[in-house]
Amino acid sequence: MTAISPLAPVSFPDMPEIDGVRFATGAAGIRYKERTDVLLALFDKGTKVAGVFTTSKCPSAPVEWCRAKLGGGKARALVVNSGNANAFTGKAGAEATALTAKLAAAATGASPREIFIASTGVIGEPLDAGKFEGVLEKLSVEATPGRILDAAKAIMTTDTFPKVATATADLGGVTVTITGIAKGAGMIAPDMATMLSFIFTDAPIAAPVLQTLLGKGVKGSFNSITVDSDTSTSDTLLLFATGTAAKRGAPKIDRAQDRRLKGFKAALDALLLDLAHQVVKDGEGARKFIEITVEGAANTKAAKRIALSIANSPLVKTAVAGEDANWGRVVMAVGKAGEKADRDRLAIWFGGVRVAHKGLRDPAYDEAQVSALMREPHVPIKVDLGLGKGAATVWTCDLTKEYIAINGDYRS
Amino acid sequence: MTAISPLAPVSFPDMPEIDGVRFATGAAGIRYKERTDVLLALFDKGTKVAGVFTTSKCPSAPVEWCRAKLGGGKARALVVNSGNANAFTGKAGAEATALTAKLAAAATGASPREIFIASTGVIGEPLDAGKFEGVLEKLSVEATPGRILDAAKAIMTTDTFPKVATATADLGGVTVTITGIAKGAGMIAPDMATMLSFIFTDAPIAAPVLQTLLGKGVKGSFNSITVDSDTSTSDTLLLFATGTAAKRGAPKIDRAQDRRLKGFKAALDALLLDLAHQVVKDGEGARKFIEITVEGAANTKAAKRIALSIANSPLVKTAVAGEDANWGRVVMAVGKAGEKADRDRLAIWFGGVRVAHKGLRDPAYDEAQVSALMREPHVPIKVDLGLGKGAATVWTCDLTKEYIAINGDYRS
Repeated sequence: MTAISPLAPVSFPDMPEIDGVRFATGAAGIRYKERTDVLLALFDKGTKVAGVFTTSKCPSAPVEWCRAKLGGGKARALVVNSGNANAFTGKAGAEATALTAKLAAAATGASPREIFIASTGVIGEPLDAGKFEGVLEKLSVEATPGRILDAAKAIMTTDTFPKVATATADLGGVTVTITGIAKGAGMIAPDMATMLSFIFTDAPIAAPVLQTLLGKGVKGSFNSITVDSDTSTSDTLLLFATGTAAKRGAPKIDRAQDRRLKGFKAALDALLLDLAHQVVKDGEGARKFIEITVEGAANTKAAKRIALSIANSPLVKTAVAGEDANWGRVVMAVGKAGEKADRDRLAIWFGGVRVAHKGLRDPAYDEAQVSALMREPHVPIKVDLGLGKGAATVWTCDLTKEYIAINGDYRS
Repeated sequence: MTAISPLAPVSFPDMPEIDGVRFATGAAGIRYKERTDVLLALFDKGTKVAGVFTTSKCPSAPVEWCRAKLGGGKARALVVNSGNANAFTGKAGAEATALTAKLAAAATGASPREIFIASTGVIGEPLDAGKFEGVLEKLSVEATPGRILDAAKAIMTTDTFPKVATATADLGGVTVTITGIAKGAGMIAPDMATMLSFIFTDAPIAAPVLQTLLGKGVKGSFNSITVDSDTSTSDTLLLFATGTAAKRGAPKIDRAQDRRLKGFKAALDALLLDLAHQVVKDGEGARKFIEITVEGAANTKAAKRIALSIANSPLVKTAVAGEDANWGRVVMAVGKAGEKADRDRLAIWFGGVRVAHKGLRDPAYDEAQVSALMREPHVPIKVDLGLGKGAATVWTCDLTKEYIAINGDYRS
């Protein structure tokens, strides 16, 4: 057993029910007998859906299934299994997703087009979706609202803690609720794939609007985190909106430009960021949560590319693990990013203390002060390129021997 | 003390003298007292030079010096110091290179424009080039041919073994000789920067021709290796040709298209590859030498990008460290490279055994056979994308806890 990450939250928030969403978890024996390995979420009629997926050119079968069904914009059920990622499984993989959807549709009285699917676990093993037969029917009867923490636990693989978040927002004078769960520790854990996240809300928002909000929201959250630079074949983020708040007077939103969305958008963005941070804080072997801010870049894209170059540098990550404010490695990572940089305009801060500026070590900085800051669990690094107005922030964790042990010590 | 890499060569070749090149090493007290930290190589009049440098946007002062002087194509001396990389040192860095060149020029009777400089060591500390005063004069008197192994040892930092290679070639009926040295273990070792390599030959080849040969030669060698994806601010590769073989009848070559270059080009390419492989085999914490070949890509550029994506994947590298033929992680790395890939056409080999094809695990493969191959120190991985004729091979090493220890354990 791996110990719980030292960066885990000290407590979980009370997770409110979302009207129109019910959860059930069970055991289908996908990889192990009598282990919880399937989550069923049921949605009331009228639920809208949006999704964002891995950029991998070799996506898993469930990712291809969800992408194809997203155009309909409607969802009645979500089936998530662990134990098998159904990735790199060829035509058999597509057949397994079709069978899963068929079984879930039969159990819930929906159309297969309205069934969304995510799988996490072993890559390259055929998934025997026949094992869901009977199980999904049983779960559809058992499903109850409010079991979202159980749902979060059911989708864990190498995660050391379940990841949940909740928020409320004002939508045209009515309070709507958003809840979300996520899993993911490395981009791929040993033989395991996937960062998964599912968000649920009662807000009555049309599917294309949800898609716009989600597409924008992931840029500064899930698309701004990295554990080890390795992108899963299965990354899936789905947002389900039951619309049940309309019964309480919430307005139906059909346009992304609708000003009444302001509060919802802010709450959704904050919730996505919260979940994304939790994924980093459960990064394999993580002991430090690192926030990297790049300012003064030629443009936003350059800023993000440089920030990710720093975040993905093994030498920067091992330096933080060693509690060393090694700004020379930050310069290296800026230099290798391929974006415009002027060595003699660079300034670098560790934990708010400027350690380098104008291409030189800052003669004023106090090493003892910086050393103390590096011993904190949260390490902010800031780089100002002094070139333009491009800025970006990304988050990562340190690189420790525990990461190697989790991913390389098959014999221990 | 770090143990010598298990991938180190069992013996060093006899390194022949290059007519027109003399070496001396000494102690200038750059960082530590009475430690060999400076190498002086002297070249006879008429020596031509070519060079290739880091692609970093934040290069060191010596890299900028060499780039600016390369246009002249003439070299009389090379000064290499360890202990201080003279990187991220602002204007003081440029002044230090100018002073170094001035002192070396005075000691050797050359022009400062004919002095080439490389530095390796701490980043961000001003280099006191005044310490070379007297030392370079002494070394220029002491310099003798044939001390190339000493030269290779003098430029080591965290390297666990000196890196040397030699070759001969036929040039218009006359045998010419090439020798080379290199240093580098991580792209940046703790507080240390730099992959350096220096090649020497007696072949009478014009500077622009040398530049063409070197530019082509690095593509398949030094630009096809990676230890940790981190690019140094100081990477420097210089090729010096004394031309003294002309006295023995070797033809002077002024055109890169000259057919008489064929043998020289092949010998140079092989020597560059040999040295590049040695750098990987001394990669920090390396226990495995990994050769990654990508075939069937849309084009050569795509093949190389995919190969480097695999080579730089922490999950692939830890899997090899764990002696696990984890082809799922190879699929992941292919998918994240951003180049065209078709999951259902992918085939993957570990150590010559096909483990996956047509988007599926190969049912025929023998796990025991593959497990045995994974225990070898040399692990070849091949991917066929089945799309086109693009092919590339790159080399890397595994990622072990020792890498983390070298780069992160400041307290041990």
